[in-house]
Amino acid sequence: MANIDENSVGIVQTQTMRLVDESEPLKLACGKTFAPIDVAYETYGKLNDAGDNAILICHALSGDAHVAGYNSPDDEKPGWWDVMVGPGKAIDTNKYFVICSNFLGGCSGTTGPSSTNSQTGKPYGLDFPIITIGDMVKVQKLLLDKLAIGQLLAVIGGSIGGMQVLQWAIEYPDFVRAAIPIATTTHLGAQSVAFDAVGRNAILADANFTDGQYHGAKGPDGGLAIARMIGHITYLSEQGMREKFGRQLRSAEEYSYDFNSEFAVETYLDYQGRSFVERFDANSYLYITKAADYFDLAKDYGSPAQAFADVESRFLVVSFASDWLFTPEQSGVIVDALTANRKDVSYCNIASPYGHDAFLLESETLGAFICCFLKATYDPDGEKQPCSCSAGMGRAFSHIEQAHRARVDYELIESLIEPNSTVLDIGCGNGVLLANLITDKGIKGEGIELKQDLVLDCICRGLPIIQHDIEQGLGSYADKSFDYVILSHTVQTVKDPKKVLEELLRVGKKVIVSFPNFAHWRCRGHLFFHGRAPVTKQLPCGWHDSPNIHFLSLRDFDEFCTDLSVKIEKKIPLSQKRLRPVKFMANLFAEQAIYVTSKNDTSLRP
Amino acid sequence: MANIDENSVGIVQTQTMRLVDESEPLKLACGKTFAPIDVAYETYGKLNDAGDNAILICHALSGDAHVAGYNSPDDEKPGWWDVMVGPGKAIDTNKYFVICSNFLGGCSGTTGPSSTNSQTGKPYGLDFPIITIGDMVKVQKLLLDKLAIGQLLAVIGGSIGGMQVLQWAIEYPDFVRAAIPIATTTHLGAQSVAFDAVGRNAILADANFTDGQYHGAKGPDGGLAIARMIGHITYLSEQGMREKFGRQLRSAEEYSYDFNSEFAVETYLDYQGRSFVERFDANSYLYITKAADYFDLAKDYGSPAQAFADVESRFLVVSFASDWLFTPEQSGVIVDALTANRKDVSYCNIASPYGHDAFLLESETLGAFICCFLKATYDPDGEKQPCSCSAGMGRAFSHIEQAHRARVDYELIESLIEPNSTVLDIGCGNGVLLANLITDKGIKGEGIELKQDLVLDCICRGLPIIQHDIEQGLGSYADKSFDYVILSHTVQTVKDPKKVLEELLRVGKKVIVSFPNFAHWRCRGHLFFHGRAPVTKQLPCGWHDSPNIHFLSLRDFDEFCTDLSVKIEKKIPLSQKRLRPVKFMANLFAEQAIYVTSKNDTSLRP
Repeated sequence: MANIDENSVGIVQTQTMRLVDESEPLKLACGKTFAPIDVAYETYGKLNDAGDNAILICHALSGDAHVAGYNSPDDEKPGWWDVMVGPGKAIDTNKYFVICSNFLGGCSGTTGPSSTNSQTGKPYGLDFPIITIGDMVKVQKLLLDKLAIGQLLAVIGGSIGGMQVLQWAIEYPDFVRAAIPIATTTHLGAQSVAFDAVGRNAILADANFTDGQYHGAKGPDGGLAIARMIGHITYLSEQGMREKFGRQLRSAEEYSYDFNSEFAVETYLDYQGRSFVERFDANSYLYITKAADYFDLAKDYGSPAQAFADVESRFLVVSFASDWLFTPEQSGVIVDALTANRKDVSYCNIASPYGHDAFLLESETLGAFICCFLKATYDPDGEKQPCSCSAGMGRAFSHIEQAHRARVDYELIESLIEPNSTVLDIGCGNGVLLANLITDKGIKGEGIELKQDLVLDCICRGLPIIQHDIEQGLGSYADKSFDYVILSHTVQTVKDPKKVLEELLRVGKKVIVSFPNFAHWRCRGHLFFHGRAPVTKQLPCGWHDSPNIHFLSLRDFDEFCTDLSVKIEKKIPLSQKRLRPVKFMANLFAEQAIYVTSKNDTSLRP
Repeated sequence: MANIDENSVGIVQTQTMRLVDESEPLKLACGKTFAPIDVAYETYGKLNDAGDNAILICHALSGDAHVAGYNSPDDEKPGWWDVMVGPGKAIDTNKYFVICSNFLGGCSGTTGPSSTNSQTGKPYGLDFPIITIGDMVKVQKLLLDKLAIGQLLAVIGGSIGGMQVLQWAIEYPDFVRAAIPIATTTHLGAQSVAFDAVGRNAILADANFTDGQYHGAKGPDGGLAIARMIGHITYLSEQGMREKFGRQLRSAEEYSYDFNSEFAVETYLDYQGRSFVERFDANSYLYITKAADYFDLAKDYGSPAQAFADVESRFLVVSFASDWLFTPEQSGVIVDALTANRKDVSYCNIASPYGHDAFLLESETLGAFICCFLKATYDPDGEKQPCSCSAGMGRAFSHIEQAHRARVDYELIESLIEPNSTVLDIGCGNGVLLANLITDKGIKGEGIELKQDLVLDCICRGLPIIQHDIEQGLGSYADKSFDYVILSHTVQTVKDPKKVLEELLRVGKKVIVSFPNFAHWRCRGHLFFHGRAPVTKQLPCGWHDSPNIHFLSLRDFDEFCTDLSVKIEKKIPLSQKRLRPVKFMANLFAEQAIYVTSKNDTSLRP
């Protein structure tokens, strides 16, 4: 029985609409034209008068148009993303008008290989044309046109759905205000193509496949089940599988010494294979995986960076740390391509043990990111209040101020920055400095931060924020991308300060560096008179538990800059509590220092 | 044509021997008895008069008895591990007598499901009993008995062959002097069982399987090919696959828009599937993967540690960093179980991008480890010379002395250690301190080291050496396992000195710690008078490129010990060049210090 509570969209009907008929067939990427095309879709919530609250959800391989609620009071389970879509949920149907359609080639109401070919009176089977992600998106656009949607607030999808999100943002740049591609990629790697190919092989090799014309007879159930089992192994992480199943036997203590399924993981796969066969069409499986294999932005547009050159959307890219099918590295390619184009992009790699399935399982964390990002994009009341979603930002930021980070330098750093400039803040924490700079100086700011909860804070503030370890460099950013790069109280915590500073000087015209001064008189005294590693307010930890792995003085940094041919434009020694620079014997009396540096243009030298 | 050069064992004949007949059938793990059993095997080299140079090689899933050389001058390819076995190779047939047999249940000459069942006159098919790794090893033992081998110098194998190696060492402890399990595990995890199960499903679901009685007809080729394709994906790493195939198309620039194999990785898998079907029996695939799934030392013996309680072999455990089928963590379980029993075990996780296949591809590196380990175990001439294998130890150790490590402390540390005690050296480098302690003091020593080439040096010296990061703790070692644990010039380079020291004090009765003194007068002067991070002979690096991430003085360490309730038994401040302790104002004049510490037995306190 349906569990229709106040957070459910309730009973919904899947609707069907003819979008393409024989009079004007659709031109497909393969070169063929195709008609007719009917599309199954559902909608939730209401389109507002301004028409600016529409969100399109793109489903993955085995999904369908039925995202949320129940099609009938007798349904035991709601739609596939009910946890995310509904009144008061992350994708709040009280605020947004949500649309999802079964994609072209699917088997849940939209025209696909199991649809009847009017020319033969039989299902298309392998006579269905090979389709691409681009073709799917074209059909979705036709649907939105018919529904009189003039622009999308957001397009959201995971996995193959995420491919559609990327395609949307690229093909219809002014139609999409925000794009949220989740656990997806610009192209499948060899391993994923291989898994897909083996799955298709299993279907094609099944004696009951009969060239795709199995309708009415027993179909290639064995082959489709094999394909689905392979899929399920790739959707889970090794750790997730180990924790869920281990070596548990289904129903006995001892081995059965036969070939029946006996390990719990075997019976799980059997079940997944069997239940998939009941609801999915083997031909659709072939066509959809082929479309995924063919998806390749580099091939279609020259390179990922060229593909994203003209996008206008804000992006929230999300990956999951243990996802080995659509890996964090692959999301990194998307992020790099967007940063190379200086687009508005945020990225989080959510810590999760659930592999690719995390896209459906980490609903609370993922929901917070989506909710806050949507809120920062769509704020018709102009409240600029923290997002009120339960998972999100009722919290007031204050508890997440970073420890061990003296904030007196923030005001001074702010004073060093020209109005309306561009700023990249490395290790930006909860984004308070960037937010202040935007308010006070009208800058265009971006952040880089390592910690997931701080990344969420920044997204809530509407800041472009990328979860990234600065030690990995900033490869995707072009030279001189920013007027200022800020590295506040971080240089002493990175493994390779030289590499980091050089990288920052490459992407920033000026680099502002602040750090605690190890040669402050208190530190000197500690070592000189007491023979001990210094512990001060600026260096509050003991020798063995400090996050600082380097110790440097103003003089050390001066020499460092000389060695690297870095120009020191300003040097501001500071005491702990006062904003007034230390003027006398700075290396002795300053507790911290702020440097403004730039690259000596060596090309001007003889 | 066979390429028979001086490094080949040349033309060899596979021999067959009846080991079990109906008069005395073999008792199997499943409870049934079975006969007859014929075994196919090959041998290379000569058994010496002492009978102590025999090496057994155990093959993996798709291997056979034909390890090296050629069965016929017309053969295009040599045996499956020819690169490792031959005159002058890592497993040197000039020195060793090498045996390999096709295992029970196989399809390359040894009795298996494709053998004729004399009761029916037809192949066994599914009437063949379910066999285990233990059953395979039992049959191998019968073969060695017939060949009058009284003891094995070594048993070596990778993957499923490695499982046999473990089983050998456990079941016949006094028969095996050295065991080299490579890329293997004490049990398959849920993910591997899942892959095996899907492969078996593909075979069992094939319409041509006909309950295993397909002989004489077209067999379940489609299913077996699917199983092999899945296997091949798991044998390669994602990185390896990406680098080898990428998204390359087989023969065209453009997509074919049909379901033919077109990506290079697809045609590779097709080829692997097709060629496997030609040489392998589907029933054997079922039985062998089932035996692998059933292998579980914890189930059979209580725990991995209990399984290894009585082994007498020296162990060299090898894994490959990118192997995700038989992971380094799984090799770690073997190593932990052996260290928990204080067995003679060495471990190396070889850096390789080739995944599980590295076992066959990293022949030079793997060969060096095997060659040196064998040499250290078997040295009939008593030369105690470095191993002469080309990949190995012609080199004289000297070039690999560690940088930044002041060696004056070694002599003093040696003087602190009681004769005939047990010693664990953390970060032991090339093992020179341990080797000296063994020669001079008759200690029993073991090492832990992170760097692969230093691990190889230690193996060459015959030292038990485990490649391990001390920051991960020493979980498998029992409390008070060693009289001494040495941490020489390392405490200042680890992230969490407190955790490390506490762990060392748990496993060692005494812990000897040495480190550079940050409060030496030169350091103090650097900071006090010059306001700079110290650079001295003991601290030779600049603030930004030092491997030292903590700085401590004698006084800091004194207080640290007090805080941790650690007893300082001896404290020896040293100058750089002299062995004589610094007696006056040590924290000012010592450049380094050696501490002997122990745990205060708090249980004696009220």
